[in-house]
Amino acid sequence: MGEIIMKNLFANRVLNNDTSDLNEIFKNSANPENISFAGGFPDNRLFPDHALQAAYQDAINRGGQALFQYASTQGLATLRQKLAERMANHADVQVTADNIMLTQGGQQAIDLVAKLLLNHGDAMAVEGPTYMGALAAFDTYEPTYYEIPVDHDGMDIRYLRHTLKAHPEIKLIYTVPDFHNPTGTTMSLQRRKDLVALANQYDAIILEDSPYRDLRYDGTNLPAIKHFDTEGRVVFISSFSKILSPALRTGWLVADEPLIQALVNLKSATDVQSSSVTLAAIDSYLAHNDIDQHIANLNAAYQIKRDAMLNALDRYFPANVSFTRPAGGFFIWVVLPQGVDAKQLLKDVILPQAHVAYVPAACQFAHRKVTNGFRLNFTGLDPVTITTGIKRLGGILQHLNVDTTVAKVALS
Amino acid sequence: MGEIIMKNLFANRVLNNDTSDLNEIFKNSANPENISFAGGFPDNRLFPDHALQAAYQDAINRGGQALFQYASTQGLATLRQKLAERMANHADVQVTADNIMLTQGGQQAIDLVAKLLLNHGDAMAVEGPTYMGALAAFDTYEPTYYEIPVDHDGMDIRYLRHTLKAHPEIKLIYTVPDFHNPTGTTMSLQRRKDLVALANQYDAIILEDSPYRDLRYDGTNLPAIKHFDTEGRVVFISSFSKILSPALRTGWLVADEPLIQALVNLKSATDVQSSSVTLAAIDSYLAHNDIDQHIANLNAAYQIKRDAMLNALDRYFPANVSFTRPAGGFFIWVVLPQGVDAKQLLKDVILPQAHVAYVPAACQFAHRKVTNGFRLNFTGLDPVTITTGIKRLGGILQHLNVDTTVAKVALS
Repeated sequence: MGEIIMKNLFANRVLNNDTSDLNEIFKNSANPENISFAGGFPDNRLFPDHALQAAYQDAINRGGQALFQYASTQGLATLRQKLAERMANHADVQVTADNIMLTQGGQQAIDLVAKLLLNHGDAMAVEGPTYMGALAAFDTYEPTYYEIPVDHDGMDIRYLRHTLKAHPEIKLIYTVPDFHNPTGTTMSLQRRKDLVALANQYDAIILEDSPYRDLRYDGTNLPAIKHFDTEGRVVFISSFSKILSPALRTGWLVADEPLIQALVNLKSATDVQSSSVTLAAIDSYLAHNDIDQHIANLNAAYQIKRDAMLNALDRYFPANVSFTRPAGGFFIWVVLPQGVDAKQLLKDVILPQAHVAYVPAACQFAHRKVTNGFRLNFTGLDPVTITTGIKRLGGILQHLNVDTTVAKVALS
Repeated sequence: MGEIIMKNLFANRVLNNDTSDLNEIFKNSANPENISFAGGFPDNRLFPDHALQAAYQDAINRGGQALFQYASTQGLATLRQKLAERMANHADVQVTADNIMLTQGGQQAIDLVAKLLLNHGDAMAVEGPTYMGALAAFDTYEPTYYEIPVDHDGMDIRYLRHTLKAHPEIKLIYTVPDFHNPTGTTMSLQRRKDLVALANQYDAIILEDSPYRDLRYDGTNLPAIKHFDTEGRVVFISSFSKILSPALRTGWLVADEPLIQALVNLKSATDVQSSSVTLAAIDSYLAHNDIDQHIANLNAAYQIKRDAMLNALDRYFPANVSFTRPAGGFFIWVVLPQGVDAKQLLKDVILPQAHVAYVPAACQFAHRKVTNGFRLNFTGLDPVTITTGIKRLGGILQHLNVDTTVAKVALS
């Protein structure tokens, strides 16, 4: 068999997805000699392993053998009920357990919504930059992307309005409104309202992806976009990955009819159901532990890390490099001078000389055209390592600043 | 919002999938007044809940907080290593852990292979009848189906040869060779060899779906089709759902390059990874328990149930109704006289009068055209209930036999 022959059998959806660059970055970032700001990792030391161990025990004690049988595709009703209450208390969204489906992390929810809506070539709007994992999911349905810029108040709704006017066929608008991945910015109240009005006007669905919502270090949360939904056009997604553990692979999706039933049918065709054992364990964890206290502990720890990174950026980064100051979440976004290719810089200079990794801009834009930026994660590392890594990174960027000729040679 | 407006936004892939009939059947079959042979359920009383509880405890004790972090998409290496050894010992397939990916049950493996290969309209061959869940997964990629009949030696390879000659563009051949779902038949040795030769000749991929392989009640197993693969064209799928527990949602996929890497990339875009906690628990279960002894216990229990069903079918079914005599697996397939619509019969007569449920033929054929058959599951119920249900079902079928006029009225 020749590999060339075999690849002729692959569907078009996978032929344009060259993930080799990204795979290489994450491979390099896993090298313990490097300080990696690339992954979006929670802090290992904050996982409540003992409480979760007790929760698995309790779930299996209570469920017995019947827990190990097939169960509903939509997921454990008592857990959905708890999430319905959480949606009311933490996102100002009034829904019942019937409006909620449990998924394999937020990622599966993104994939299922794309699968439900996107024919090949269908138009959709995404923020630029946006969550690269969402692009990977969307890419497999081959949409036509329209990129909407992000500023300090989130997605630029005026730009979106112009785009919808020019392309009224846009059927899906994807946004990460709370502590946006990768910029860390949060969509303003007025923009949330305006976004729903635009979706109503242009008959579009909004996919509100909000895994970082509870991780706020300053200020107070805004209502979810779903709160302003008047026509059942908003699908809200969140996840236990960042507030409890990503290894549980449990997210949830909130939607109205006819979307929710269609999404349940699609999940059934995709993986039948999620693990009843895991869902019962999470349900038990929530019954016997105060997850809001746990989240408060996370926030106290992550605030210190964010501040350490911002302080180091202030101190070690040159004046021609700008960065965001997020009030929560996992990420800070850095903008380099025009013309700098952050991916090339990473491979040629940053990794070999500074032994630091980040996620370069290009793979976080649907059109892959913006190159002068990168994403930094601050939750996965301790404050001392954060400071050391940013200092090393700043040393290279200061050098680029002083001598652009050398930088250009390095980037060639 | 009108539901009509919203459905205009749905992708074509979901518009042709009317699952309402099937949902209704499963809803009715869940009614405790009915005896349901519809689901493909293992016996609750055979799940090793205590051993699995200990396995979760051990996995979390060993893994500690790091277990709850993100991990590899391909899945826990030590578990993949155990499965590589199992593939050698139980399927005559020599592979390394690098050739294996862990999935959310066998269902996700089917979905990912379809996602990798199928453009809208691409040609594929499926058995007729076949596993309805596989059809649900394939349907979402909108292939052109070619149905290949199944006889007592499995897929009719002569028919496949003619089909491939007429349609050499067929790129994927899906088969359940061991205790086929829904007929229970097993593909002969010669046909396995011939199938691989045909795939080589016509540059096609074989998807070998084998979740029932270890559940044999008579005779000895044949090598997997993957054993005869000379060009890396066979993707083998199996699952812990039937031999351990479906609630673990853990299957595995065996493939060569370039397929395996492409499938890992697609899983990453679909749900990032499976649960490390679950995979570590299964790994611990396998390390501390003899799964082959557990499977031997399953087989002893399921053989009794199969025999109870075959005895009842012999006794209570009329001569114009035929059925298969599987040597393993979960299912028996029943063929009714030509012209009988098993779905209509179920809704009009069998459920209301006999309070028995089965899966009617139509939803198990890609073209939905064959109506005179149904699938019976024998693993989920006890022998007495099996006998009672088959007796009731036979009573109706005897009646159909005696007086076709009444039957036709009942079926109108």
